[in-house]
Amino acid sequence: MPRQGNIACIIGGHYTCRVKESRWKTISTEHHFANAHVDVATDHVQTPTRSQPRTWTIVHRKAAVVIAPMTQDGKIVLIHQERIPIHEAIWEMPAGQIDNRDADQEEIKQVALRELREEAGYELARDGELIPLGQYFSSPGFTDECGYFFLARPVVRVPDYVRNESESILDCRPFTISEIRRLITENEIRDGNTLGVCARLAAHGLISL
Amino acid sequence: MPRQGNIACIIGGHYTCRVKESRWKTISTEHHFANAHVDVATDHVQTPTRSQPRTWTIVHRKAAVVIAPMTQDGKIVLIHQERIPIHEAIWEMPAGQIDNRDADQEEIKQVALRELREEAGYELARDGELIPLGQYFSSPGFTDECGYFFLARPVVRVPDYVRNESESILDCRPFTISEIRRLITENEIRDGNTLGVCARLAAHGLISL
Repeated sequence: MPRQGNIACIIGGHYTCRVKESRWKTISTEHHFANAHVDVATDHVQTPTRSQPRTWTIVHRKAAVVIAPMTQDGKIVLIHQERIPIHEAIWEMPAGQIDNRDADQEEIKQVALRELREEAGYELARDGELIPLGQYFSSPGFTDECGYFFLARPVVRVPDYVRNESESILDCRPFTISEIRRLITENEIRDGNTLGVCARLAAHGLISL
Repeated sequence: MPRQGNIACIIGGHYTCRVKESRWKTISTEHHFANAHVDVATDHVQTPTRSQPRTWTIVHRKAAVVIAPMTQDGKIVLIHQERIPIHEAIWEMPAGQIDNRDADQEEIKQVALRELREEAGYELARDGELIPLGQYFSSPGFTDECGYFFLARPVVRVPDYVRNESESILDCRPFTISEIRRLITENEIRDGNTLGVCARLAAHGLISL
């Protein structure tokens, strides 16, 4: 396909969140609110294609990891998590934020493995591998939040795992790909991270939706 | 699968964004910042499973429509859009916000058809249909933003279409499903809406990823 000059380069297909096009320029920023979770500001931004700067309110967020944990028999492990912003508990892939904004590939992988252990109580089997599946933007119309996708396979249960009480996770169990497909069609899987990594897995031929 | 009591009901598989579980209760709200695009607040929320309320910062957003436009020959129309929060132009399905928070199913469909016309310059063919594919939450860890998915097929070009200069859309063209698959695997399709509706389309057997 013809590539536009302002699509950022892809470095090895992954870890492109921080690759910014030099012809974009933030001229000024008005800060509105910030805490440990969100940083809300209105920027005046010169884009590559417009003569006049644009004004846009942006919610800055840390990047995240999203892990699809696959068992030896090809099931995917999902967690059932209470999500306060939507007042619901939903089925999701394990995920978590990357606290260090300058994290390199190895550190991002370690965050993925930690979240897999902490949220799902699973870890890579001795012969297991963590396969990067690129990244995505959860809602680029208003936030710079970016998620790094991984397939972890095969995974096994962490022995004597006890979930941290501070997590909002109510349940965790493996689903066959057929069950995953049904959960997606029946509007039960409604989480952006989870749908996103499923699309990547399917496009790579790693699951069949 | 065993259903948890606190999963909200699904009404005909669609339009569930506003279905809230009654055992969730917002006890108090501290408002931080609001404009036409975001409303940021910290809530104290009683969840169904915890004895003590939780404190959570939430970015409230309007719901959105996300449309997968399919041509008579089975191609999907994507737009190439400058996204200011991420300082990039990316390929996406047409999408747009629903201004009326009380919009019913018919009004949501009309918004979807309007965005299809305005952003992509396409409309339903005379025998075309707009097929609801449920909804999703873009990033339920911090925002209540919800997107309603639709497949529009077949679509045809709007005669004499001229794109509104205020849009940030640089290009628009149909892609074969094979091209879509490649764009997903090569990390070129990185938009949450687009990956999400692709997962739904694939799970429904409407495209083959």
